[in-house]
Amino acid sequence: MIKRSFFFRLLTPDSHLHYLCAMPIHEHSDTIVALATPQGVSAIAVIRLSGSEAIDISNKVFHGADLEKKAGHTIHFGTIRDNDKVIDEVLVSIFKEGKSYTTENSIEISCHGSMYIVKQIVMLLIHHGARLAHPGEFTQRAFLNGQFDLAQAEAVADLIHSDSEASRRAAMDQMRGGFSKEIKMLREELIHFASMIELELDFSEEDVEFANRDELKSLVNNILVKITLLINSFEIGNVIKNGIPTVIAGKPNAGKSTLLNALLKEERAIVSEIAGTTRDTIEDEINLGGIAFRFIDTAGLRETTDEIEAIGVERTHQKLQEASLILFLFDLVNEPIDSIKRELEWLESQPVPYLALGNKVDKVEKNHVKAFEEIPHTMAISALSANDLIKIEEAILKKVNIGEFNTGSTVVTNLRHQQELINTEHALQNVISGLDKGISNDLLAMDIRQALHHLGEITGTITTDDLLETIFSKFCIGK
Amino acid sequence: MIKRSFFFRLLTPDSHLHYLCAMPIHEHSDTIVALATPQGVSAIAVIRLSGSEAIDISNKVFHGADLEKKAGHTIHFGTIRDNDKVIDEVLVSIFKEGKSYTTENSIEISCHGSMYIVKQIVMLLIHHGARLAHPGEFTQRAFLNGQFDLAQAEAVADLIHSDSEASRRAAMDQMRGGFSKEIKMLREELIHFASMIELELDFSEEDVEFANRDELKSLVNNILVKITLLINSFEIGNVIKNGIPTVIAGKPNAGKSTLLNALLKEERAIVSEIAGTTRDTIEDEINLGGIAFRFIDTAGLRETTDEIEAIGVERTHQKLQEASLILFLFDLVNEPIDSIKRELEWLESQPVPYLALGNKVDKVEKNHVKAFEEIPHTMAISALSANDLIKIEEAILKKVNIGEFNTGSTVVTNLRHQQELINTEHALQNVISGLDKGISNDLLAMDIRQALHHLGEITGTITTDDLLETIFSKFCIGK
Repeated sequence: MIKRSFFFRLLTPDSHLHYLCAMPIHEHSDTIVALATPQGVSAIAVIRLSGSEAIDISNKVFHGADLEKKAGHTIHFGTIRDNDKVIDEVLVSIFKEGKSYTTENSIEISCHGSMYIVKQIVMLLIHHGARLAHPGEFTQRAFLNGQFDLAQAEAVADLIHSDSEASRRAAMDQMRGGFSKEIKMLREELIHFASMIELELDFSEEDVEFANRDELKSLVNNILVKITLLINSFEIGNVIKNGIPTVIAGKPNAGKSTLLNALLKEERAIVSEIAGTTRDTIEDEINLGGIAFRFIDTAGLRETTDEIEAIGVERTHQKLQEASLILFLFDLVNEPIDSIKRELEWLESQPVPYLALGNKVDKVEKNHVKAFEEIPHTMAISALSANDLIKIEEAILKKVNIGEFNTGSTVVTNLRHQQELINTEHALQNVISGLDKGISNDLLAMDIRQALHHLGEITGTITTDDLLETIFSKFCIGK
Repeated sequence: MIKRSFFFRLLTPDSHLHYLCAMPIHEHSDTIVALATPQGVSAIAVIRLSGSEAIDISNKVFHGADLEKKAGHTIHFGTIRDNDKVIDEVLVSIFKEGKSYTTENSIEISCHGSMYIVKQIVMLLIHHGARLAHPGEFTQRAFLNGQFDLAQAEAVADLIHSDSEASRRAAMDQMRGGFSKEIKMLREELIHFASMIELELDFSEEDVEFANRDELKSLVNNILVKITLLINSFEIGNVIKNGIPTVIAGKPNAGKSTLLNALLKEERAIVSEIAGTTRDTIEDEINLGGIAFRFIDTAGLRETTDEIEAIGVERTHQKLQEASLILFLFDLVNEPIDSIKRELEWLESQPVPYLALGNKVDKVEKNHVKAFEEIPHTMAISALSANDLIKIEEAILKKVNIGEFNTGSTVVTNLRHQQELINTEHALQNVISGLDKGISNDLLAMDIRQALHHLGEITGTITTDDLLETIFSKFCIGK
């Protein structure tokens, strides 16, 4: 009972916080409908319904079987009809309450992939009592109905938007609960700590101290270490999710376009192996080691290359500031070693990691190549050589440290999560300094409340309507 | 037996014709795979497999249930794995041989709608023995396995591309066999006729005549009448399928853009009712009475409007030749009645139906409006009035005679079918003139053979590999 009273005290009375467990399972049980596949002409399109009336409404327009009487997880062929008019021949999949994505009664209608037909069917379903779903509303319902927590729900959106092996894997780990488990463990440790303060609060008039202050501090510090690790992992998490902005720089005719095209061609060849599934190619993006490298247009840079030597034109600077990696190409045919060395000095002064490549190795004397290679951290290449391309790709990957990710540690990829973790960190730092100063348990409890609140917002143990709206409005319609 | 020998004689020995019934059901039973939904980020994507190994191959990568042991038309939740790596959480639908679209063992994998994930799953399935499907290969297999005939298979593609009520309905009727039934009946009548000639051929040395020549002629003429009706229906069928090319013409400032925008706005408002299912709006296309009206850019026309009065500038002419309907706008504020009458005379001389609209009725004196309205076949309007817009839409629809379609008669929408019908018509005309000239039965049989051949190519009773390739290569991949 003590614990419970503490929890209720954690709720600030004027906020609209609510605990997940306090929410009725079918609070939002009106039936929603949306196209779940992309717009466009295709073999099939899938229309999704969810809500208590999903099967009933579908049954009104479907001819071929009595869906109400059929078992869940079965498929039925028939027609969608508006009175006597056959709109389409379709397959209908039934998912019964408790065994669907949203946990509600759900239906998937697989029709011919014409947007005109999709529109007709959706309008017919609306006419019979469904309403158009908001973006992310299916996943929101799955979350509200306890199918998964908020971090897992957010991972669904990340998974859909994943476009590299690393982003897919990070989203998949998060969706399957890896990240949530870690947050929940931290929260439980914090709750354990809170319960001790709580116990003292309940006996406050007797002025007892159930927990040793040093032990408490060490407990909070342990949690802080783990939270700081997670916060720092966002750097790599962001790279995984959004790719690495990369600039190819160098003097005119150094071979920048040749190198870019060579890198892209290799990637395109891999992508186009699976004809018909080629994603809308993002121009100037390659996938190396599961990480996306997005090339920043350096047209501006090219115009001002002469001024690079003069070091530090504002515009060039800005372009390079956007980059997380610079591939700097030297023209071994036309640039003397002295000039190269000066440029390298400037490169070294930049805060961005770089790769110094001496190009056109096949067109210059061996002595010149040797002189170049004697400069540390350089690589002599020909952008036209397939072997050198492999070497360059390996070198690019080495510049990006994703070792942490590859060892399987949890990586934070979501900016919101990182912000909540930073908020948690602040609150816990206040707890530490409060303990140091020997402040009252009442004040300590306020900071703990803050920390628990922020951690809870990550997994959605604590949510507000605003928070949910912000999160799910970014989803696709139909998910 | 007589009939049979006749049929074999109908086959020209050097062609690669084959009868459907002679084809083994699983001639093409290797397992094919393709994305069946459009490319793009979305809630879900559906990957389709078909072939004898479809279930077996899927089972190798799916964890959650033993698909081999599950019943058809059931759905199973689980993961797609590449060894230990979980690629995605998916739903797998099973369709057993004989009860699937292709009639082969089939699987549909519903995964998260990321093109990266789709690519990974498709590559994994290929690794385990599937191969990438050619465009239309699923439907081609359905045809080859006797699921439906060729005209019905072609209607599947039309249905997917339907973007108006009329095109959807025409495709649906054809897919459900309405058109095929008609062709088959004609073919049977022709076979009946052929059998009589055949009988005489078999007794040719005895010089008997089993059928009265006049009766034969009347039978062929009956068939010809029906075929001519079908051929002529293509005019409206083409409109249904491809929309009506429409030009809005008139002097500068007559209000052409205002009218076009008003028509489009109305249509867009209807389309956007169902947010998220709005098809890629084809700029400058409206749907009236289920028919699409495509507006042809009349920029060229605008530049040369002064010369319209001088009647017949080549360029303007060409633009108008492309149109099947002209909306001609007069500027009641600035154009005197005499000038309007001259332009109308020119309009009358054009082979294209037109609508003569006097615009800006709200800005001129009543007398002027009256004088305009006294000219036959004109309509005084304001392009800004919602009521007038409705009147204009009604008038546009009246100009397009789709009564034939609306009475439910069969309409030919496919150019290939029309060509085959024309070929059949030629062959039958030769039969008639042959009968008139009293040519030998051998020669008559050749023309009948031609007619039967062309009719048979419509429904695919007779096909060649080239024909099939031509037809199915125009399909989407995944269908």
